[in-house]
Parts: sequence; C-alpha cells; structure tokens
Amino acid sequence: MVKYQPVDSTQSPRFCGVRTFMRLPHVQTLEEVDFAVVGVPFDTASTFRVGARFGPSAIRNVSHQIRPYNVNLGVNVFDYCSGIDYGDISVVPGYIEDSYVRIEDGLAPLFEAGVIPIVLGGDHSITLPELRAAAKKYGKIALVHFDSHLDTINEYFRRKYNHGTPFRRACEEGILDVEHSIQIGMRGSFYSAQDLKDSEDLGFKVITSNQIREIGFSALISQIKERVADRPAFLTFDIDFVDPAYAPGTGTTEVGGFTSYETLYLIGNLKDINFIGYDIVEVLPSFDPAEITAYLAANIGFEFAAIIAFQKKNREGK
Amino acid sequence: MVKYQPVDSTQSPRFCGVRTFMRLPHVQTLEEVDFAVVGVPFDTASTFRVGARFGPSAIRNVSHQIRPYNVNLGVNVFDYCSGIDYGDISVVPGYIEDSYVRIEDGLAPLFEAGVIPIVLGGDHSITLPELRAAAKKYGKIALVHFDSHLDTINEYFRRKYNHGTPFRRACEEGILDVEHSIQIGMRGSFYSAQDLKDSEDLGFKVITSNQIREIGFSALISQIKERVADRPAFLTFDIDFVDPAYAPGTGTTEVGGFTSYETLYLIGNLKDINFIGYDIVEVLPSFDPAEITAYLAANIGFEFAAIIAFQKKNREGK
Amino acid sequence: MVKYQPVDSTQSPRFCGVRTFMRLPHVQTLEEVDFAVVGVPFDTASTFRVGARFGPSAIRNVSHQIRPYNVNLGVNVFDYCSGIDYGDISVVPGYIEDSYVRIEDGLAPLFEAGVIPIVLGGDHSITLPELRAAAKKYGKIALVHFDSHLDTINEYFRRKYNHGTPFRRACEEGILDVEHSIQIGMRGSFYSAQDLKDSEDLGFKVITSNQIREIGFSALISQIKERVADRPAFLTFDIDFVDPAYAPGTGTTEVGGFTSYETLYLIGNLKDINFIGYDIVEVLPSFDPAEITAYLAANIGFEFAAIIAFQKKNREGK
Amino acid sequence: MVKYQPVDSTQSPRFCGVRTFMRLPHVQTLEEVDFAVVGVPFDTASTFRVGARFGPSAIRNVSHQIRPYNVNLGVNVFDYCSGIDYGDISVVPGYIEDSYVRIEDGLAPLFEAGVIPIVLGGDHSITLPELRAAAKKYGKIALVHFDSHLDTINEYFRRKYNHGTPFRRACEEGILDVEHSIQIGMRGSFYSAQDLKDSEDLGFKVITSNQIREIGFSALISQIKERVADRPAFLTFDIDFVDPAYAPGTGTTEVGGFTSYETLYLIGNLKDINFIGYDIVEVLPSFDPAEITAYLAANIGFEFAAIIAFQKKNREGK
Amino acid sequence: MVKYQPVDSTQSPRFCGVRTFMRLPHVQTLEEVDFAVVGVPFDTASTFRVGARFGPSAIRNVSHQIRPYNVNLGVNVFDYCSGIDYGDISVVPGYIEDSYVRIEDGLAPLFEAGVIPIVLGGDHSITLPELRAAAKKYGKIALVHFDSHLDTINEYFRRKYNHGTPFRRACEEGILDVEHSIQIGMRGSFYSAQDLKDSEDLGFKVITSNQIREIGFSALISQIKERVADRPAFLTFDIDFVDPAYAPGTGTTEVGGFTSYETLYLIGNLKDINFIGYDIVEVLPSFDPAEITAYLAANIGFEFAAIIAFQKKNREGK
Amino acid sequence: MVKYQPVDSTQSPRFCGVRTFMRLPHVQTLEEVDFAVVGVPFDTASTFRVGARFGPSAIRNVSHQIRPYNVNLGVNVFDYCSGIDYGDISVVPGYIEDSYVRIEDGLAPLFEAGVIPIVLGGDHSITLPELRAAAKKYGKIALVHFDSHLDTINEYFRRKYNHGTPFRRACEEGILDVEHSIQIGMRGSFYSAQDLKDSEDLGFKVITSNQIREIGFSALISQIKERVADRPAFLTFDIDFVDPAYAPGTGTTEVGGFTSYETLYLIGNLKDINFIGYDIVEVLPSFDPAEITAYLAANIGFEFAAIIAFQKKNREGK
Repeated sequence: MVKYQPVDSTQSPRFCGVRTFMRLPHVQTLEEVDFAVVGVPFDTASTFRVGARFGPSAIRNVSHQIRPYNVNLGVNVFDYCSGIDYGDISVVPGYIEDSYVRIEDGLAPLFEAGVIPIVLGGDHSITLPELRAAAKKYGKIALVHFDSHLDTINEYFRRKYNHGTPFRRACEEGILDVEHSIQIGMRGSFYSAQDLKDSEDLGFKVITSNQIREIGFSALISQIKERVADRPAFLTFDIDFVDPAYAPGTGTTEVGGFTSYETLYLIGNLKDINFIGYDIVEVLPSFDPAEITAYLAANIGFEFAAIIAFQKKNREGK
Repeated sequence: MVKYQPVDSTQSPRFCGVRTFMRLPHVQTLEEVDFAVVGVPFDTASTFRVGARFGPSAIRNVSHQIRPYNVNLGVNVFDYCSGIDYGDISVVPGYIEDSYVRIEDGLAPLFEAGVIPIVLGGDHSITLPELRAAAKKYGKIALVHFDSHLDTINEYFRRKYNHGTPFRRACEEGILDVEHSIQIGMRGSFYSAQDLKDSEDLGFKVITSNQIREIGFSALISQIKERVADRPAFLTFDIDFVDPAYAPGTGTTEVGGFTSYETLYLIGNLKDINFIGYDIVEVLPSFDPAEITAYLAANIGFEFAAIIAFQKKNREGK
Repeated sequence: MVKYQPVDSTQSPRFCGVRTFMRLPHVQTLEEVDFAVVGVPFDTASTFRVGARFGPSAIRNVSHQIRPYNVNLGVNVFDYCSGIDYGDISVVPGYIEDSYVRIEDGLAPLFEAGVIPIVLGGDHSITLPELRAAAKKYGKIALVHFDSHLDTINEYFRRKYNHGTPFRRACEEGILDVEHSIQIGMRGSFYSAQDLKDSEDLGFKVITSNQIREIGFSALISQIKERVADRPAFLTFDIDFVDPAYAPGTGTTEVGGFTSYETLYLIGNLKDINFIGYDIVEVLPSFDPAEITAYLAANIGFEFAAIIAFQKKNREGK
Repeated sequence: MVKYQPVDSTQSPRFCGVRTFMRLPHVQTLEEVDFAVVGVPFDTASTFRVGARFGPSAIRNVSHQIRPYNVNLGVNVFDYCSGIDYGDISVVPGYIEDSYVRIEDGLAPLFEAGVIPIVLGGDHSITLPELRAAAKKYGKIALVHFDSHLDTINEYFRRKYNHGTPFRRACEEGILDVEHSIQIGMRGSFYSAQDLKDSEDLGFKVITSNQIREIGFSALISQIKERVADRPAFLTFDIDFVDPAYAPGTGTTEVGGFTSYETLYLIGNLKDINFIGYDIVEVLPSFDPAEITAYLAANIGFEFAAIIAFQKKNREGK
Repeated sequence: MVKYQPVDSTQSPRFCGVRTFMRLPHVQTLEEVDFAVVGVPFDTASTFRVGARFGPSAIRNVSHQIRPYNVNLGVNVFDYCSGIDYGDISVVPGYIEDSYVRIEDGLAPLFEAGVIPIVLGGDHSITLPELRAAAKKYGKIALVHFDSHLDTINEYFRRKYNHGTPFRRACEEGILDVEHSIQIGMRGSFYSAQDLKDSEDLGFKVITSNQIREIGFSALISQIKERVADRPAFLTFDIDFVDPAYAPGTGTTEVGGFTSYETLYLIGNLKDINFIGYDIVEVLPSFDPAEITAYLAANIGFEFAAIIAFQKKNREGK
Repeated sequence: MVKYQPVDSTQSPRFCGVRTFMRLPHVQTLEEVDFAVVGVPFDTASTFRVGARFGPSAIRNVSHQIRPYNVNLGVNVFDYCSGIDYGDISVVPGYIEDSYVRIEDGLAPLFEAGVIPIVLGGDHSITLPELRAAAKKYGKIALVHFDSHLDTINEYFRRKYNHGTPFRRACEEGILDVEHSIQIGMRGSFYSAQDLKDSEDLGFKVITSNQIREIGFSALISQIKERVADRPAFLTFDIDFVDPAYAPGTGTTEVGGFTSYETLYLIGNLKDINFIGYDIVEVLPSFDPAEITAYLAANIGFEFAAIIAFQKKNREGK
C-alpha cells in the first residue's frame, strides 16, 4: 500500500477537515512520494483581472469531492502512487522577479528528488520559474501548452516579465526544447497577425482553436504526441483554453473555447507522454460564483495524477 | 377544454402571481387531473453540498416563463392534459426514514388515482420512497436513471440511507424491475472499479458517459427503449447528468457532462415509454446565481408534461 | 492610418481609462468614421426580467480586453476602419413610443452619413426604431435575425409595442424587405403552433433550432446568404440565441441553445452580406455574475466590426 | 379563531409549500378578512436601476420564516386578525398610466370592504394609484412617508409619471390630506435646494435625515403623531429609507441611512395612528444576494400586520 | 516561547498555505496546548436554510488575516498561549443523534486535558453534545448564550433534536447550571408569548434585544457577570445575534440586531468569566457573498482566544 | 456658470452615457477647472485580497446617481466649481516603483495648476506618490488619514514598498508635515503593541477606533482640526475605516468599524481644513455584489467636491 493517500470519504464526510488537495496528507517530505501538489499563489504578473493568488485554495476546497478511481484511464490512482499536498510556495506579492526565485528554489528539490509536481497557480507567469527548476534536473524541456493565448509577447508596458511573456523568456533562456514544444488552442483577438508568427519564429508549433475545429481531436492528439516524442515534457494548462461557460473564473476571458469533456478527453489521451511536471493556472475564484472553474481545475489536476499512476502501473507491469 | 391549465401570460405578465409550476392552479385534488407537479423539499440525505430543499421553489419561480406549446414534441400540453401544482410534501428535516414515510404516503394517492406525478426534488434519496409509492400500484418498476453517479453505494458512514444508496435499497426491497432498468451517464471519479460492477451485479444495465460518447445518442435511445420495453417505468433525472456549465446549481458537481440540448433531445425521444412517474432532483439554488439550473430543471419538467400530453394525444387519436 | 482607433493595451493597461467600447475614442462626430458603436439603454418594453438598460455599460466594461486583430476573418480592424464610441442615445424610461422617436432620430444621421452603427441594447424592441432609421436611407431592409424567439407576436396585454412584437410591427410599417429576411434559432416553448405560422405568414423564412441541428451550419449559412442575396441588410442578434450556459445574463432564458463558438462561426461566415447596421440586444448584467455574457456580446460586436473591415479591405483591394 | 391564518411551521417545515406571504392562504376573497397582502409587481416607472417587479415574490419567499407573535407590540397577530395573501395585481409592464388604472381598480374593492391592504411593490410610483383607490373610500388621505427621497419632483424627461413624482401628482389630484402629511428621512444629494422647498410648498411637513439625527427618535415619533392626528392615514415605506448596509436591494441607493432596528422601532411606535393602508416599495432582488433586504421588507410587512392586530385587540378590549 | 503559534504573515503572505485557523499548526495533540480550534461541520438539525457544514472552512479561510495582538484586550495572544487547529470532528450527515455521539466523544478528551476548545459550527444543535462533553469534566455548566432565538422549543415536527431545542434538552439532561445561565439578545417573531416564559420556566435568565436597548450595554455586562459568578461557564454564540447587515450568512435571519462593534465590545468585557469552552455557530457561507460573516466569526473566535490569553497572563502575573 | 459640470439627469437618464464620475466631462485639461477626479487603478502593492485596480471604474459606474446639491454642506457644487473626470493614470501593473513614478508625474501638473485632485484608488500604496507630487508644490503636507490600519509597517516580505508601508516611507522622505498629521480609526488585530508605538514614534497623532468610541465624534473633529490647523493638508480615506457591513468590497476587512452616516458626518465637518488633495482607496469591486461600497466611495468623493465648493463659496463671499 502506498504511504500517502486521501482520507476515505465513505467514512469521513467530504466536507470535514482542513482543505488539502483531494484530502491528501499535508506534509513537506519528498520521501516515498510519487507526486506532490504544490500551490503557487502568485498573480502580480497579471495584466487585466487579478486574483489568481486565491486559485490554489479554491481548487483545494472543492477537490475534496474527487474519488480515487479515474474512469477515463481506468486506474485507481492510489493503488500505484503516493501523493501529498506539499502546501504553497511563499511568494512575494508585488515583486515578480523575487517571486520567480522563490518559486524556482521551492520546486527544484522536487524535480531533483524525482517527485512529479502538480502545480496549482497562480497566473501564467509562474511557469517560467517552474521550467527553470525543471531544467536544472532534466535540461531542455518540451512544452505542451494549452491556452487561448500564446504568451510569447515580447513585453507589456516595456517590461519583460508578466503573464503574457513567459514562453518567449523561456526560449531566450534556453530552457525549452522548443523543437518538441507545441502550443494548442489559441483564439480570439490578437494584437496583430504577427503575434502568431512570432511564436512560430521562436520555434513553437502552434495549433489554433480554428485549426483544431478543422482537424479534429484525434489528429490533434497525434500531432501533439508526434511533436513531443519521447522528450521530457512539461504540461502547462491555462484554464482559459476552456470556454468561459465551463470556466468563468479566469483573468483573460476568451469566448469560443472548448468544453470540459473535450478538455479531459485531450489530457487523458496524452497519457503516454513523458511528463516530468504539470501546472494548471489562471483560476480566479472571484469570478467563479458556482465554483465550476475550481471543480474543473481540480479534475484536471486529478487527471494529471491519473496519468502518473497509469504510467507507474505500466512500468510496474501490474 | 381541460379543467386545470396555466394562466395566460399574454394577458397577465409572467412575473405576476404566487409562484406555482408554470402558473398552474395550486390545488390538492386528484379529480380531472392528468399530471400533478409535487415538490419534495428534502435534502437531509446529502453527503456534500446541501440545500436542495429550496429546489422546488427555485424551479417554480422561473417556470413562469414556459409557454404551453412544446416545440420538440409538437404538442400544446393543455390541449390534452389537465395539470396542477399539488404543492409540497411536508417532510421532516433531519430525519431520513421518517421523511421517507411521509413522501411515500404523500405520493401513493396520486399513483392510486392514475395521476402522473412530476416530482421536484430534493436530493436523490427521495426517489426511493417515490418508487415505494409507485410499486404499491404498479408492482415492480423499470427505472430510467439519468445521472453522473450510480447511487448504488452500499453505505456511507455506516448508514444505509442517503443520496448515494437509493437504488441499491430499491433493489433489495424488490420494488425495481431491474431487468428492464438502465443507468445512463456515469462519469468522473469513482471510489473503485468495483462501483460500476456492483451496479451491474444488482442487475442494472449501465451506460457511462464515455460509452455514450462512443455509441452516440441514436444508439443510446434505442438501447434505452429496448431495455425498458413496455414495462411501467419511472424516469429519474439527477441534474448532475448535465455539465456544470449548464447546471451549476447542484450538490455533487461532475465536470465533463452533457449539454442542455442533448438532455432535452434525449428525454423527448423517450416519448413512447410507459412512464408512470418522473422526478428531477439535486437542484441547489444557492449555487445557481443566474438561475440557469432552475430554468433547465423547469424545462425538463415541461418536457415530462409534453410526453404525457403526447401519449394522451396518441391514445385519443386526435 | 485611420483617424479613430483604440488605445494600445500593450502600453496602457486594459483596466485603465473611462470605459468606451474597445477603448475607442468617445466622440460624436460622423466625419472620417466607418463604424460607430452606439448604446441604446432601453428596457421598458421587457415582459419578464428587466435590466437591459445596463447592457451597454456592461459590454463596454469588458470590451477593453479585445485586441484589434480578428483571428476568424484574418483582419486587423483598424488597418482599414476608423471606429468610435458614439455614446448612448438618451431614451425615456417608462415611455416606449417616445423612446422610439429618440432612437430613430438618434440613429438616422449615422445611416444618412454612411456610418455603420453597431448598436448595443437594450431590449429587442429597439430594433424597430433602428429599422425605421435605416429605412429612411436604404428603403426596405432585409433582416437577418438570430434569436430563440420570433418576436412577431401581435400584442401582449393588449398593447402593440414591446419586445415580443417588433418584427410584426416592422412588417406592418413596410420597412422590412421581408422576402429577403430570415429568422434563425427559435426554440423552447411557444404559445401555440400558430406562432411559427404567423411569422411565416408575415413573409419571413424561419429556421428553428431543431432545423439547424438537422441541416447543419454549412447549410444554414448557405440558406441565409441565399435568402438575403445582395440586399441591404440589418443583422439583429438577440443574445438568447446562445445557450444560457454561455450567456446567462439575459431576460427570457431559453435552454437548449448554441455555443459561443457556433455563434461566432456563424456570424463570421456572413462576411459577404451587405449589412448596413447591426445590433446586439437583451444583455442583462444583473444575471451575469462572471460577466461572460458581456464578454460574448463584446466579441460579437467585434465580429461585426471585423466584417466591416473585411469588406472595406476587399473593396480597397488591399 | 380567525378564519385565515398561517400554516404552523412547527408542524410543516418553513421551506415547504408554494410561497405566500407568511404562509397565509392565497385566496381572493374579502369576506372575514382583516388584512390582505397584495403584490404590485410594477417597475416601469423606475428612472435608474430596475427590477422591483420581482419584489413581491422575493419578499414572499423569505416571509415563510416569520412566526405569528410580534415581540415589539406584544401581540399574536392571528389571535385577532384574519389575513390572506391576495396575490398580485396584473399590471401592464411598459405602460405606466394603464397600470395605474389596473392598480386602482384592483385595490378599490379592498378599501371598500374595509380590508386593510399591505401592498408589496413595485417601484414607488404605485403609491399614487393606491392613494386614488383609498381616496374613493376615505376621501383625502394623510400620508406618512418614509423615504430618502421626496418623490415630489415635477417631471423627469418631460414626463409627469414616474417614481420620482407620485406625491406631487397626488397633491394636484386633491387626494392627499397634505396638512396632515409628513415626509421622513430625506438625505443624500438633491438636484437643488429647491427640491425640499417644493415639497414644503406643496404643504408637506418634511423631516430630513439630518434633522432626525438632531431631534432623536422620540421627538420624531411625537411629531409624526401630532401631524397625522386622527386622520385616516396611509403609511408608505420606501426601503431606501434604510441604509444600504441593511437594505442593499433597492433602486436608488442612498448611503447614510437608518438601521433595521431603528426602522422597526419607528414603525412600531406609530401603532396608534389610524392607518387604512400600507405599502413597502422599491425592493430589488437582483441587488440582494443574501436576501437581507427581502427579510427586512417582510418584517416591515409583519410589523404592519401587528399594528392592525394591536388596534383590533384594543378595540375589542381583549 | 509557546509551542504552537501562527505563521508570521510579515514573512509569508497571508494568502499562502493550507487554510488553518489563523495559520496555526494543524496537529491533533493535547500536549502543550492552551486552546484548540475545532470544526464541527454539522447542519442536519437545521429547520430552514442549511449549509452550516461549510462554516468551519469558510471561517478558517478568512482567519488568515488576523494578527496576533488583540487591541481590545491589549494582549498578544501567543505571548501567553499555545494554540492549534485541531481539525474537524467527523460527523454523520443526516443522522443527528449519531453525530451527537461523535461530537461528544471528539471533544471530551480536550476538556479532560484542560485544553479549551473554540468550536466552529455547524448549526446550534451541536452545543448540546459540546455541553455533554464539558459536563463530564466540570459537572453542571453555566451557559452564556448570545442569540436572537431561545432554542428552548420542545420539539419541531414532533422530533426532540434539532437546532431549536438544544437548551431545553440540556436542562432535561441536568448538565446545565441553569441558575447561573443567561440568554441574551432574543428578538423578532416568536411562535407565542409562551416561548419566552418557557425559557424562564426552565430556569434561564433571559434578556431580550428590546431589554438590552433599554438597559444599555454596561448594565447588560454587569448582569451577565453577576448571573454567572465564578461558575465554570460555556459561551455559545449564534451569529444571528448580530444584525444581518453585519452577518448575512446565517440560517434564520432576524433583522433588528446588533453591530459587529457592539458584539466584540460585549464579548471582550466578559474577560473575567471562567469560560471552559466556546463556540460560534450558524455561519452559512452560501449567503455570505463578500465573506463578512466569516470575518466576523473569525474575529469572534480570536476574541475568545484573547480572553484565554488575558486570563493566563493574569494568572501568571506577567 | 462654471465651465464643466454634469449632464442633467432630469433630462437624460442616469443610466445613459459613458461612465465618468458624476457624469462630468471627460477631458484632460487644467484650464478653468477647480477639481479633477483622477483614477489610479493600481493594486500591485496589496498583500492580501487584490482587485482595487477595478475600483475607479466601479465608483464611476454608480456615481451617475449623485445629484449636484449636497445636503450636508448646503451647497450646489456646480454653482461654484468646475469639475472634470480627468481619466486614469496609466500605471504599470506588477511594478510598484515604476508605477509610483507614473502616478507622481501624472498628478504633479494638477497640483502645479492649483487643480484639486480627488483620486480614486487603487490600493493604499498610491498615496505615497500622490504626496510626492503634492509636496513638489506645497512642501510638507499635513495628513488626515482615515483607516483601520496604520500603514506605517516598516516592511513586508523584506520589501519596502507595499500598501502597508506608505506613511513610514513618506515620513522618511520628509514630505509629511507629521507634526500636523493624524491617523484615525485603527482597530482589530495588530502584529504587536509596538505597531501603534511605531506610528507615534514617527510623529503621528493616532486616534484608535476604541478611543473614538470613548471621546465621541465632536471631540474627534475638534482634535483633527486642532492638529492640522491651517497647514496644507491631504485627506486620505481607506474605505476599510468603515465597517464591512457598509463597505464589504475591500481588501483587508476589519470588523467593528464605523457606519456610512458617521463617515459622511466626519468628513463634512472637516470642511474648513485647507485640503489640497483627497483620495479614496482600497475599493475592491469583486467583493461588492450589491455595489454598496462603490456607492459609499462615490458619495465620499462627492463630499470632497462639496468641501471644495463650500470653501470656494466662502472665499467668494457669495
């Protein structure tokens, strides 16, 4: 039996207890741990609506409802994996680069120990220091990026660091395996046609929402797998990939997006990719009155855990 | 002309008047009545979010908008049917089994009189006493069960009665025609792979959400009809069958569900089944800020009424 | 370079400044202007929920997020078009016909000057005086009408003017080119089967939601184009065409509707029709807690602007 | 025992049943009735926020919580009074003067029969036809008017009838006993210093909020009693008399108002005035997320009922 | 230095970390602990609105803002006291008496060990098992009961146990030192004049809201102190003592209540009473959109902690 | 007649038009202007809840309701003053010190021109650059600071600039006339008793909430006037001075505060102080569901304008 697993909700009601992700133990160890859920409550880099600093607590709050068996992948996560809620990284609100240091330093030990982090954001700027931490262990990382935005703008307000620029910065820093990286789901309005070309010029493969509608999900899944191949990869999921009907609680709302079913279907079908880390970002509870965004984010986090379990199951041949 | 029908909203504005379902007369008679809308404001059996006791009033409140002609079935309900708002059954909050008695006793006269009840819940535990009441008149009942959950758990917190167990109890009590019963739409996370097998071991046919996505709605409809055949059937609809984007106001949110169009399409296509009763459960107004869940529930109730009218029209050969 | 264009959000944050549509200049000129966004905050003609008078400000408020390049039509709007926020027409709350006069008088100069209005409503009754103003310049107007309701009722409460009757009145007034007009998306409950026939008897082509589900979007687009042909047309968009999951903030909620993607796809594909005006109506902010309805309406307004730009680009051969 | 009284909430839970005021019988009789609660869901005359048409249903909805014994007046209402929920008057949304006719015609029979109406509004314009109906029976009526606004403006937008003008109109129509009328609680911002003088020129005694703060509640109560003397009086209560902290759900928010305790204390102390009718207006549920405004309005309505019972008790010498 | 104290919010932002009360350590020890915050998320005994099971998590969530120095009592709590968040007691939703056993058994060890519990409810029925647990250690307990209701009803729906009856039951069970017990703040509507007499017949001293308004706070404080004298006492605080303007998130709203300042002033002035336990009950987050009820409850809990520290400081003579 | 004044709401409905403060003209001139309302939508320096960047637009949105005559000071503002909405200062989200520069540079021309700014924040950190700008013109400034917090912390997270530190920084920079400065209303919990002493050591006079309750408002007003004397003063108003019942929409909620009446009474009575600028900060719309905080803030802004008019009236001897 794995060491760390959730409280059993058939014995203790789901509304009981201090809120940890999925009722996992809140410990800060890296021993006998397969995955660790880590909150990064940072939103200083947001350029419009703000409040993603309360994302981790909102996601934890509703995650108590999730049960251990994942129907999509046919796996009971805790038959194979030991998982913990590692708590939050103590960021510095108001100070972007200082916070990047804390995030990188906070996550590096997890990667080093081979513990797979499932990060709960936070605005999308946090993925840059996450990748920095990952690259220390794994070298260049292939990125699988779900989002309605490219986040490869050069600068906003003449500043280099905010939630619209992380992946350009990551390219410049040489921590991305951009030849095996892919951006998926861009839509809405751009500043200019150049935005998309900029991303491609940086080396990314980009598949817009309109292209997904044309090629369909099967082709999309194939293209992602083909692009990433067997490289160590990081899955970053901006909740605004999803339509605001399904995920209203976010900061840069783009209509015309995908459903929750499509989202979980896509993620589940990436189960064979060698992900060394995951995040789910841009959840803003103050625009989520019925908590459905938090529920979706919690279930995406659970889908990540299920992929980890699925891969461990396959490795162990059980 | 039928005896009981709604106030005409082209003459009296829809926002006028004490809120009854669809502006039907609020009377407690069973004479010259084809269908009766009955509230069962009971939610003591909820294991997570609670508040479905306010479901009936929320549904009534918005149902004033519905007009008498159903586009999907091509029938003006009140050309054929006399309908009433029977009011609520006076349950005992805090006491599950006592409330079951009141619900069963309250509904039995309707079934006995051949009045078809359209029950507005309430949590899903109420379907057990509804079925008990139906079985007194009709014997074993075939169940058509739309839900994201199986509700055939054996017990929670070592107790037999709550909203996760009604259909196991109904099987044990011998009031279900389980050979002709079907569960539709299960998804999300389970406690274990055994959950699904347990339901099948009880005798249910189960079609999960993932299976529906594979076989499509036409095949689903065929399988439901084939399963139920000509048996007296009860349609129980847990609003969490629908995706939380369309029905946020519910107690056990499961993302990845169906749309409101798909829902009404499915129900309308069961128009030839011999339903002797209906319910719509698990509507929680406190998580329904724009009232869209209540609207959907009200329209589902109206679709039930349209089926009743459609069948009466066919019987009468008009 | 065009004269009037938005503030650049990469230099000045989107949350800065007095809220005009898309951060366009708020001026009341008709010189060097291609399109003008005009608010018509009138809701006295609503028969159920009320509050669309706050629609224009809610839409403006979130429209600050929209960027100038439209992905769907591949055009940077302000490479071709000069656009302004013309402000609101000063209506007379509580007085329908007096307000019609103000709306007609307010919009007539725009049509006269060849400035294309994008009107933000307001309840759907406002389209009648809009059409009156348009007809002064263009004669009979072909109507492209997206809605879940026909709005061709004869009267409510024995009164001729409210938001359920504008298109019957427009027919009677002879300002519609009804032979080239089309109504799209009707669903839900009607007062009787006659409602639909009444619309057809007035001369409209009607395609219901159920028919759209059958024929598909490609056929729908073809039928719209064929119907309108090359006539001067007005596109009126009632937000309740869209499902309440995507647009909860409206006054006459009808479940079973379309998605935001489908909506934008449809509108974008009408890019070759000779639209001389547009409106988007029935946005009620008080039922829009996460502002997603306002976002969708703002993006529909932007799609209208993109069509204007697309046509100008084509005319200019650039 | 009185004929009409509420359902007993110790036997049937308060959340059960179709929502009538205080769970009173919903009947439209005037026999054996002391007071009748009547909804007037009219808000077409609102000049800013709108939605008071949903006031009556919101107030009824929470009034189920009220118990029959009034602590402030020491009287069990239904030991002395028979009370009913008379339902709503079917107004004509969008048409102010037509609605006035319906309101006047609807209420006149109550006054005629000596049944005391407790009207639930609606915007404040409805008090004009209420007074017209009262005057038919009682002649000129003394007005006790709690409000943060004077509502004696001459016209808005060059129209005579809206919720800012009813008491000037009532003066002009000669239905007010203005020498015995009083306006209480005005505060905030005015159009000019003339507003207050206009009211006084019409004959009203006006006591502003600032004056109340100076003289205190005891003196206020004395002045009201002295002013009204023994004339037949109508108590009209605009919920914006109360501070928005206590009553956020209203249409013309004025900060700096009174508390709920002060409000009930004031009303209770007018228990000896010969009120022949009451209303409570300007409750807007869409700005009342926790329903506290509706609760306060329901309790004000209950205080009115308690005064009626208190006076009957005294008359009967029991 | 005390063993258990909060995280320092000048070093780690308040929005970081798993939500425990005031950022205290979440441990389940009774060693070196002065007070323990314990959640009792039970609401099955509610007779109207329900949802207090989410009270403890809502209170914890905002309690992160509280700093260690209490201005009212002039004491830094953690200079004197070691405090923990003990977590929640695992109740049995739907089963009142079973839950009572779990609550009593869960709290008994704290009382036994001399750890003072600060309980976060939960509906008011939980105070009965709390008192049972306290009585095991201390014998009969003096009750200081702040509430707008008496909670000494004999039965609801012919059942003995729910949130309207706990203090009658406690009297019957002989666990209250009723001669030294006091009920404070009752107001609103009662079932009859007998309600109040019943409480007095049981032996309670009752001071209604109206009486408080007459005698003033100083006299009230004196009367409470005099009544309780030096007996071991339990302070139970129903949040509906406070006006709904200050505490909208509750289940049985009574207007006309007290302010947050008055509340904290009252509690702080009971600093010399020998309280052996505290609770704060009836916080319902689903009616608390701006979280102000949770904030007030958290600060009441902090005031309890400050009294504990104040008394320890005095005992220690520091 | 003054040059810039509001649109007349008796002619054009208040819900019409692009939202400027009080419907004033939105122009960026300093000619013939007495006061200018300026938004500073900056919230990067917030240490807990965030979102005050949307404060200016929320305040403008409801300010349309305010009429020109101020009852408290007996002055029609625009009989004496010309006022404009100057728009927002374009800050740099995510970058505190860069934004300070923009704020200072943006406001300096106003002070230079003798235009009195009424600043709408934004978090409280913005007062530091406001004071810097003021000091350029006026030298050391006396501060009248209403708040529940001292905002003289030395640092948070080892950083010097955030919304808890501005007044310590201002002291250090020598731009405050601290001998004539006063802090009013502090309450709740502190980090230690030292917090208060620190403020006093910096030279401030501090009057806590508890002290205000003791000395009363008259004494408070006298002490403020005496402290400030005739020095050029700046009034900074943190909305959390007010109780969360009256102002829920803020970032660092402190219960036990003051009412809206007390607030306006206090401010109005400072009408003789030589204020050279004003701000109102920490309004967070996402926690203000009924907009009452925005209304209070708008009225506070109007009270500032009334003081400006009152002083001009007196100077002009009219």
